[in-house]
Amino acid sequence: MESINSKLKSLIEEIEKLPSIGPKTAERIALYLLSLEEQEIKKFLDTLTDARANLHLCPICFNITDKEICEICSDESRDRSSICVVEEVNDLLAIEKTGSYKGVYHVLHGDIDPINHKGPDQIKLKELLDRIKNSHIKEVILATNPDFSGDMTATYIAKLINSIKMDIRITRIAVGLPKEAEIGLADTLTLSMAIKERKEYK
Amino acid sequence: MESINSKLKSLIEEIEKLPSIGPKTAERIALYLLSLEEQEIKKFLDTLTDARANLHLCPICFNITDKEICEICSDESRDRSSICVVEEVNDLLAIEKTGSYKGVYHVLHGDIDPINHKGPDQIKLKELLDRIKNSHIKEVILATNPDFSGDMTATYIAKLINSIKMDIRITRIAVGLPKEAEIGLADTLTLSMAIKERKEYK
Repeated sequence: MESINSKLKSLIEEIEKLPSIGPKTAERIALYLLSLEEQEIKKFLDTLTDARANLHLCPICFNITDKEICEICSDESRDRSSICVVEEVNDLLAIEKTGSYKGVYHVLHGDIDPINHKGPDQIKLKELLDRIKNSHIKEVILATNPDFSGDMTATYIAKLINSIKMDIRITRIAVGLPKEAEIGLADTLTLSMAIKERKEYK
Repeated sequence: MESINSKLKSLIEEIEKLPSIGPKTAERIALYLLSLEEQEIKKFLDTLTDARANLHLCPICFNITDKEICEICSDESRDRSSICVVEEVNDLLAIEKTGSYKGVYHVLHGDIDPINHKGPDQIKLKELLDRIKNSHIKEVILATNPDFSGDMTATYIAKLINSIKMDIRITRIAVGLPKEAEIGLADTLTLSMAIKERKEYK
């Protein structure tokens, strides 16, 4: 006889499908959702339903928005000659939080990863090239993840841009030790990259 | 001008209220929930609604169930003379997963924690004492967390049980090194407890 109730088990299983959620956390979240007052769960569900009904992708940069054009693309103070290319919307959100970038974005919604059968046609790459062709872009910052598929995606995009437009600055986000890192505790790959990518002391 | 969409922000904020969820994970979960197909989100919401509508607390042990009496209390093969007292339902689930306990439970739904103004009346303590008074219990295992408030709760309950019924075995779950732990890496408090609570080698 199963000692865990089947309805509770189903709920835990649904929650385990969420990203970054292990079985223990799923259990805690399930019990929490069951314990919420009616008005609290209503607020949660209403917010979710409202967000799903009204949010869509910006037709220019593919950020998430409920406006016709997203907040960043329609902000006149942003530098539209600089496009920062990221894999996912949360990468954009992370860069926005730094406050150190004032250009616009292009969200690929994925990367090129032949091992997992993800080709250039499955990401918003054609749309990026169209933007570059049809507007005055000075710089494209390739901010895909510094991992195997992200590096490959960046290299692939850089080559494509070069082949259609030569007078454009193409850059790649820096890889190195995280700030405040202890060298003795850094992972070998990051440390070897930090040495390889060392800069002149000025 | 805020660069993050307000509806997305509201959704992230709702998700951040869930236990064990930091801001980054909340962001990932929000984007994931937005990306789900209609039938996937429907399944998620239906499971949640069904669970909330049908699950309640077992009137005997306060485990979560959709039956009149929970799966464990109604299982004739369980030893009803042994009650394992836990703080929360997820503690019960964790102990069930070990498969090493064949008695029944009592879920307190909290602990006694004067610092946070949580007194004995806010947990299912009276109900536990009634069970002990009115049925033939041989052992009560106090499996509240081995932390300040959990220890205090266990001590408090042990004294109360002793005051109403003397012929009952009251035990406390063991504290010590986790299995496979490295002594050199163990935290000081656990290690000192492991030494203090050492047992005769047999």
